[in-house]
Amino acid sequence: MYAVVKSWRGPGAEIRSVETPKVGKKDVLVKVKALSICGTDVHIWNWDSWARKRVKKIPLIFGHEFAGEVVEKGEDVTTVDIGDMVSAETHIVDGTCYQCRTDRMHICRNMKILGVDTDGVFAEYVLVPEMNIWKNDPKIDPYLMALQEPLGNAVQTVLPKDHVEDIAGKNIAVLGCGPTGLMAIAVLREIGAAKIFATTGGHNKVRMELAKKMGADLVLSVAEEGENIVKIILDETDGNGVDVVLEMSGSPLALRQAFEILTPGGRVSLLGIYREHVTLDVTNAIVFKAATVYGITGRRMFQTWYQVRGLLSRPNFREKISSIITHKVPVRDIAKGMDLLNNKKAAKVALEPKW
Amino acid sequence: MYAVVKSWRGPGAEIRSVETPKVGKKDVLVKVKALSICGTDVHIWNWDSWARKRVKKIPLIFGHEFAGEVVEKGEDVTTVDIGDMVSAETHIVDGTCYQCRTDRMHICRNMKILGVDTDGVFAEYVLVPEMNIWKNDPKIDPYLMALQEPLGNAVQTVLPKDHVEDIAGKNIAVLGCGPTGLMAIAVLREIGAAKIFATTGGHNKVRMELAKKMGADLVLSVAEEGENIVKIILDETDGNGVDVVLEMSGSPLALRQAFEILTPGGRVSLLGIYREHVTLDVTNAIVFKAATVYGITGRRMFQTWYQVRGLLSRPNFREKISSIITHKVPVRDIAKGMDLLNNKKAAKVALEPKW
Amino acid sequence: MYAVVKSWRGPGAEIRSVETPKVGKKDVLVKVKALSICGTDVHIWNWDSWARKRVKKIPLIFGHEFAGEVVEKGEDVTTVDIGDMVSAETHIVDGTCYQCRTDRMHICRNMKILGVDTDGVFAEYVLVPEMNIWKNDPKIDPYLMALQEPLGNAVQTVLPKDHVEDIAGKNIAVLGCGPTGLMAIAVLREIGAAKIFATTGGHNKVRMELAKKMGADLVLSVAEEGENIVKIILDETDGNGVDVVLEMSGSPLALRQAFEILTPGGRVSLLGIYREHVTLDVTNAIVFKAATVYGITGRRMFQTWYQVRGLLSRPNFREKISSIITHKVPVRDIAKGMDLLNNKKAAKVALEPKW
Amino acid sequence: MYAVVKSWRGPGAEIRSVETPKVGKKDVLVKVKALSICGTDVHIWNWDSWARKRVKKIPLIFGHEFAGEVVEKGEDVTTVDIGDMVSAETHIVDGTCYQCRTDRMHICRNMKILGVDTDGVFAEYVLVPEMNIWKNDPKIDPYLMALQEPLGNAVQTVLPKDHVEDIAGKNIAVLGCGPTGLMAIAVLREIGAAKIFATTGGHNKVRMELAKKMGADLVLSVAEEGENIVKIILDETDGNGVDVVLEMSGSPLALRQAFEILTPGGRVSLLGIYREHVTLDVTNAIVFKAATVYGITGRRMFQTWYQVRGLLSRPNFREKISSIITHKVPVRDIAKGMDLLNNKKAAKVALEPKW
Repeated sequence: MYAVVKSWRGPGAEIRSVETPKVGKKDVLVKVKALSICGTDVHIWNWDSWARKRVKKIPLIFGHEFAGEVVEKGEDVTTVDIGDMVSAETHIVDGTCYQCRTDRMHICRNMKILGVDTDGVFAEYVLVPEMNIWKNDPKIDPYLMALQEPLGNAVQTVLPKDHVEDIAGKNIAVLGCGPTGLMAIAVLREIGAAKIFATTGGHNKVRMELAKKMGADLVLSVAEEGENIVKIILDETDGNGVDVVLEMSGSPLALRQAFEILTPGGRVSLLGIYREHVTLDVTNAIVFKAATVYGITGRRMFQTWYQVRGLLSRPNFREKISSIITHKVPVRDIAKGMDLLNNKKAAKVALEPKW
Repeated sequence: MYAVVKSWRGPGAEIRSVETPKVGKKDVLVKVKALSICGTDVHIWNWDSWARKRVKKIPLIFGHEFAGEVVEKGEDVTTVDIGDMVSAETHIVDGTCYQCRTDRMHICRNMKILGVDTDGVFAEYVLVPEMNIWKNDPKIDPYLMALQEPLGNAVQTVLPKDHVEDIAGKNIAVLGCGPTGLMAIAVLREIGAAKIFATTGGHNKVRMELAKKMGADLVLSVAEEGENIVKIILDETDGNGVDVVLEMSGSPLALRQAFEILTPGGRVSLLGIYREHVTLDVTNAIVFKAATVYGITGRRMFQTWYQVRGLLSRPNFREKISSIITHKVPVRDIAKGMDLLNNKKAAKVALEPKW
Repeated sequence: MYAVVKSWRGPGAEIRSVETPKVGKKDVLVKVKALSICGTDVHIWNWDSWARKRVKKIPLIFGHEFAGEVVEKGEDVTTVDIGDMVSAETHIVDGTCYQCRTDRMHICRNMKILGVDTDGVFAEYVLVPEMNIWKNDPKIDPYLMALQEPLGNAVQTVLPKDHVEDIAGKNIAVLGCGPTGLMAIAVLREIGAAKIFATTGGHNKVRMELAKKMGADLVLSVAEEGENIVKIILDETDGNGVDVVLEMSGSPLALRQAFEILTPGGRVSLLGIYREHVTLDVTNAIVFKAATVYGITGRRMFQTWYQVRGLLSRPNFREKISSIITHKVPVRDIAKGMDLLNNKKAAKVALEPKW
Repeated sequence: MYAVVKSWRGPGAEIRSVETPKVGKKDVLVKVKALSICGTDVHIWNWDSWARKRVKKIPLIFGHEFAGEVVEKGEDVTTVDIGDMVSAETHIVDGTCYQCRTDRMHICRNMKILGVDTDGVFAEYVLVPEMNIWKNDPKIDPYLMALQEPLGNAVQTVLPKDHVEDIAGKNIAVLGCGPTGLMAIAVLREIGAAKIFATTGGHNKVRMELAKKMGADLVLSVAEEGENIVKIILDETDGNGVDVVLEMSGSPLALRQAFEILTPGGRVSLLGIYREHVTLDVTNAIVFKAATVYGITGRRMFQTWYQVRGLLSRPNFREKISSIITHKVPVRDIAKGMDLLNNKKAAKVALEPKW
């Protein structure tokens, strides 16, 4: 089969023919029908410092956002059928560690990530453990199916635990308007936030317009407003600040502002990845503010997936999320897709299975 | 001033002139601008068994859903100004009991209810303790302001505690489409429910159509479908049942069906008032189903009010809630409003301050 | 091997030689070292109305509370070793239903119960799916290991969800002093309850004394005090009532009293099994009281088991729980053990693997 | 009356005669019977950088941990009687801000702190707003009554929200063995923690022995063990790390270690005050670890006080907490008490009302 293969420890990747994987007892072989590029894939393509440190397996077929049709299954597989249209949870877990046995599989101690630690989906076929398969409603657009994985990240950032209910009728800020940040705005609007504030680092028109389309009431550019952002948001909330901040940018400045715009006793979710250690006024930002901070990783397996399915049952919401795909290119032109993302000309780039 | 006074222990009430109340140190006097009729008011008007047992104070000015303008305030009042457009939380609490001191003021041990235990709002002026005053955004329609109190009941039924987050992307059933049930449907749609099922006792066309308008996906009449309702809802949820049931009808049959349509581990909120004791298969309905049941009373003071404010900041939602007012009559024709409600020809009836 | 077999649909059971079960790929074969009798086993022995309706498989080896040594394992078993001292979660789940995939395995839609739906532990050897195995600290007494399953029930009744924290420094009532009720008292005392009230149906001296030993401050007999129990508990709590009630008796009277002694806004956990439907004043007991009710089934897999392990790490607690075993008889005298329980002369009866 | 007065902006304070405060309508005048010194008082006495920045009011009677007898009350006071033995919540709140009206009074936007922003308790008499009064059981030792305020801090660090239940049967680390850290250990032991690890900065024998007495299983000195502490705690928890960390030291090193010893998905409470901004590997410490972090300020008003009351109803617990008072000196020798604390020779120092 053809696949996008990271064959060397350096920038780029090659499309070449590799052996189609063999199906183990509990595996499912999926013929890929729709793909999209995650920020992680861009890191691996660019071979930046994160990728150099994180990626052990070379050669590697990368990619993990996809939908496809089941074409073969192992002898012990009971819950998936040939012909099913499926996507996959990309956290491959051991099921036996302390975290897995206490409802926190998504932070398994021995987790492998599809397309990072094992061969992924930028290929004609992909092998997925039965346990990670998510069966889709076949009526949904396959490219929307592929977006469920990052959408799950967005939902988990918004609703990190069962016992968090702090969105309905509350004021919220989303810092960072990458694809997952945009999805988070759409989720917030769908689940009853009052005012939604969104910030972007640069003055990225595509993303700022998408942020408004997703439902943000006010979209602010850090490049333009700088520290003034704090004042603006406090003014817009009667001086109280917002009830919840979703920090999805990975910018240390944004992290500091997160606590300045937060109402005392409010909540901050951190999905952003900070390249360096961050210096923070912990005493005033967290302790005296009685703030709650959640680190966000992955999606709850599979509570979040069910929530995603429920949200996607609403046509308006499906349409919104689909519109985050600003470009669709054949997978053989993946380099073009990577360029669009590196130049910040795109929000989400989908890849067609055209080899 | 003029007021609707329950002057005798029997059906009906009279409009007559009474003394305008005197303002105490911590009281606020409000000139009434908009009114609406609650089910409680109908009970008092009809003088049914509940009213006979519950109402101690005769003569009584009843009514508690309203908005008005502050015209006078006591010497110790600091947070309200003359001219403010206000509504009121109707639970008058002592602020000192165990419940009040542990964030459960709405179930104060010594609670009095405005318009039931003390003179209420069906009058030209009403006296409200400063603590119970809710300041409104003056740009909102006063009749919508008046609906905030029952809307708060709906929100509390949907979101009874801080640590309940089980609506986004979930399937929900609302049993009973009275005005508060209708509001709950609108709230559920606004905060991201997946499928919403609604049931009515009789085949009440006005309410069934309103239920659809509020956002229900499927509206079922118990008169028509009977026990079949359980089968329909299970079929529509892949046999799982709904994640949450809001029992807002007060019908014992609905209460029993609530647990039959509930997915194991799901949640039931009970706002309905059952006239008689109910016989229930507790073992299968609750214990083996690992169900969670919340009894719902009032609104959290004032978390729920802030949530209501946040939700009402969205124009679409305001419009939906306003549309539950199917009739608006002068308060001098209150008897006509009561007839509309007794004959189930109306959803919510508003009263204009025309004496 | 020898086993206690329910060979007919009637009272009693026989000890006879049966084939030792064959080990499947994912199974573990355990040589039984310690046993104890659950209330469920008494029902099956007595062949009462519940057993007649519930038990489908005859002949059946019953029993599910045990500890033993692993002597053989299937080829796919990776987390258990020969020689491990183990107990087992008795809910055998499919792992694939909606409940299993949303952290509620203990209420799996297709659950089978060890010793009820499949052959159980009253035998020389028992076959357990790898997933259900709980590895014990070998230094703990095997009879204490066997008690972990009901102790898990007690813990789950006390702490039914992650987002329940209402024991530390609170007043609690436990209705019913069967073995699991007694364990619940010990758990409550261990986790910081303030006053603990316990009630028993009859005037059962053994259990009342054990209840005190477990840590109850006041033990009341319904036979002696009747309806007066409500008054006594309200008086002892400054009229507030208790913060939490654990209804573990299955008595309709106790269920009604549960809500009468509950402080408004408090919580009731229901582990009791009510033989008949119960008539309840739902309006006053639940709705106006803003009560929260949890139905309790099984143990969370495996959060509760880890909590049990943590609690059992304290020597005082271990000693307390062990003392609930009032009698230890050879399994060949199981009839004697059943008599002790039927005549309410014992709390927990352990069975030695002496055939 | 006599009082300890900070009459100048520099180290120390003087005892001098000042006017007894006049009782306002809603105030309560309390004759002081028992006092203790908080870390805050030491800062004010020493006039360190924190005090220089924080304290606005000079002259200031400082101190806030106390118990005393009500000797006079304002005309509007209804819930307190002459002769009551009382202590006080030291957060004086406005009751009207967003935080106060949404069950977060303890982080009121306009909060004043007794003995910091207003005259405090190191005096013969102190004036307290009725709302802040906590009525004590007169049978409890007054010096124990005085400790309820910091004990409330400890309880709030352990149990920061209603929906946190993660102590029973879990492994916990307490970083910092100051008086509040010691109290937290006692609370953890009382509410069912499994293993408790405690760390101290220096090798403070008094505190390390007290930590063991409070119930810590292992007490480690950072001075002795350094970074090895992480390894030790991971080893003692099967490599999982602890479920909960209470950071009560204010040391940046401890804050970093907090996340290293935390199990993925675990919880950290921060009560420590960091003098400088802290540099933290947010990505690995919080995001990838899916950690939850709570900033802790004050005590919930008054949920925490009720929990404290409940815990103090147990004699063993009372005895433990009392033993944290290592020294008792007449208030006229307050300088000696300050010396004991500055030289780390004491845990908690009580002051007798001897002028």
